[in-house]
Amino acid sequence: MQTVITKPSLIIDKAKALMNIQHMQAKAAAHGVVFRPHFKTHQSGVVGEWFRQVGVDKITVSSVSMANYFADHDWNNILIAFPVNVLEIKQINRLASRIDLQLLLEDSAVASRLNELLEHPVGIYIKIDVGAHRTGIPMENESQILRLATEITKLEKLKLKGLLAHAGQFYHNPGGITAIQLKINEISKQLSRLKQQIGDENLLLSWGDTPSCSMLESLPDFDEWRPGNFVYYDLMQYHIGACQLNEIAVAVACPVVAVHPERDEMLIYGGAIHFSKEFIAADQNFRMYGYLVSFTENDWSDPVPGAWLSSLSQEHGLLKLPAGFVQQFKPGDVVGILPVHSCLTVDAIGIQYTTDGELVPKMD
Amino acid sequence: MQTVITKPSLIIDKAKALMNIQHMQAKAAAHGVVFRPHFKTHQSGVVGEWFRQVGVDKITVSSVSMANYFADHDWNNILIAFPVNVLEIKQINRLASRIDLQLLLEDSAVASRLNELLEHPVGIYIKIDVGAHRTGIPMENESQILRLATEITKLEKLKLKGLLAHAGQFYHNPGGITAIQLKINEISKQLSRLKQQIGDENLLLSWGDTPSCSMLESLPDFDEWRPGNFVYYDLMQYHIGACQLNEIAVAVACPVVAVHPERDEMLIYGGAIHFSKEFIAADQNFRMYGYLVSFTENDWSDPVPGAWLSSLSQEHGLLKLPAGFVQQFKPGDVVGILPVHSCLTVDAIGIQYTTDGELVPKMD
Repeated sequence: MQTVITKPSLIIDKAKALMNIQHMQAKAAAHGVVFRPHFKTHQSGVVGEWFRQVGVDKITVSSVSMANYFADHDWNNILIAFPVNVLEIKQINRLASRIDLQLLLEDSAVASRLNELLEHPVGIYIKIDVGAHRTGIPMENESQILRLATEITKLEKLKLKGLLAHAGQFYHNPGGITAIQLKINEISKQLSRLKQQIGDENLLLSWGDTPSCSMLESLPDFDEWRPGNFVYYDLMQYHIGACQLNEIAVAVACPVVAVHPERDEMLIYGGAIHFSKEFIAADQNFRMYGYLVSFTENDWSDPVPGAWLSSLSQEHGLLKLPAGFVQQFKPGDVVGILPVHSCLTVDAIGIQYTTDGELVPKMD
Repeated sequence: MQTVITKPSLIIDKAKALMNIQHMQAKAAAHGVVFRPHFKTHQSGVVGEWFRQVGVDKITVSSVSMANYFADHDWNNILIAFPVNVLEIKQINRLASRIDLQLLLEDSAVASRLNELLEHPVGIYIKIDVGAHRTGIPMENESQILRLATEITKLEKLKLKGLLAHAGQFYHNPGGITAIQLKINEISKQLSRLKQQIGDENLLLSWGDTPSCSMLESLPDFDEWRPGNFVYYDLMQYHIGACQLNEIAVAVACPVVAVHPERDEMLIYGGAIHFSKEFIAADQNFRMYGYLVSFTENDWSDPVPGAWLSSLSQEHGLLKLPAGFVQQFKPGDVVGILPVHSCLTVDAIGIQYTTDGELVPKMD
């Protein structure tokens, strides 16, 4: 690591991130699909350029603010993959005046209202719930989906572009590759059926989650992929089976501030406001917020077996260590932590560098 | 609420916050202790002034960055209640050159190193572990505490000021007022014994956590109180028994973006990057991230019984509602959410207003 660390900072291994980008881009190309990566993970104009280098020209974001940020970084085709918030119509109109903007809809009243308020045409994806039950029209509810599709085609400012699915359930109960593959085949069949019923052969079936796009050899019948997390991956993806530990492209550099040999623990400057409070639980008494690594000149080590970030308060992080291991550390050292959820860690943390010491600015 | 909401925003009920401040200040005065409130909860120069109005002139913060921010807002006596991070010595020296700075120590090697690096004298508190086992020297370890105290008094730039305790364990297993009172009596007795052994009658015994400072009638033998969360309180404090629901002084205003009558749920724009992922769990299958309230002209309602924020992703929040209740809402409405942990929500969210529509800037 080529940077002087004084407080918690995200360190990006650019070589790993580039590799992750190239792999996913090549896989999407091999499948003949549009690659519209989600930029909510990195939220950085600099990292966006790494995608542009492999030919990406369409992106996904999760908020109007993020769309604005990337429009300012010369991205001209942006999908906001979050149900339209009509209260932001002023910002949406400004965006639609300068880029090819795609929005997400699932409600016919919102569709009409949006059409009244828009000053420029926008592309529309219909949000389909394929089992995550977060939002969207359930995929089995064909009549409601067809009705909304028909209504949208009648509205002058709305151009129906696709059906959008996000299988968020794979984060909670992935159940192995075979189970995911079977589920996806079923979803894909149903989305294709809906496309046929809508009768628009240009309609895009848009798919996106890092576990399935990473793990599966074949993603049948989709036209567009929108994974995001894969650029950095994290311990959640590793535990799902979507990446190897050496594909995780970010580590948080944290100063050691106290050592506790009597209980094999040490305290780092690095807390909930840097990592987020996302954790992996073995049971109610065990929460894991990150793995310990040590920085090398240009990279970092494998995680130390038996060491983990066991509790977080606002600025404090407490590390459990294997017996005697704490002797190697003293206050003033800098250690690395592989985060559980890189999207939330990136959002929370203020400072980012590559392992080469290049400052990587991101959205405020 | 006097503000036009377009995206998730923290709304501060100034009247409630002022009341919370006045109550705690009066209680501290009645106990004859120094009131040195923790400003990590609000992180705002404007809210700081509300404390200054009741006579507060000494404060606590949790990072060097936060000390800088409040020094810029004319606070001249600041304690950084986090073990000294020697990697930030440059910023510490700048701070010590312009304010009366107090730092926290628990390690004699750090004490010597700090003394070498400092350009100006600073006050020092020794961090005592009174049972939270996050950090500090265990209070039973008298010889180690006395040794560090003696070493500090020999170091030219370090002025020993106090022994500092934070009973973080009361957040996890409060066990009722009587249990807390008994534990505190024991801690207070041990800290007084240490003070006597150190032999400095001006040494401050510094105490601070919102549950005990709020709940207990009597906090014996401490000289200084440092609670912070009480300015806003939150659902965690309510569940511990440290506040009433109508003392919670912040609610997050969130746009409704989708309604799901078929499963009595609705989706709001307001996710992990606004609330943090702090939750209250009844069991492994139940997580509660907030309560639903509705805004009135100058305030908000009591929580809707049977309604709670049940899951959060990056920007999405899913609300469970009582049967049929969802009919009252449509996309474009704005609802309020009482947060589980106000400190983390304030840190995460970008925009803050009072219920009167006054913008309340805070630290970046």
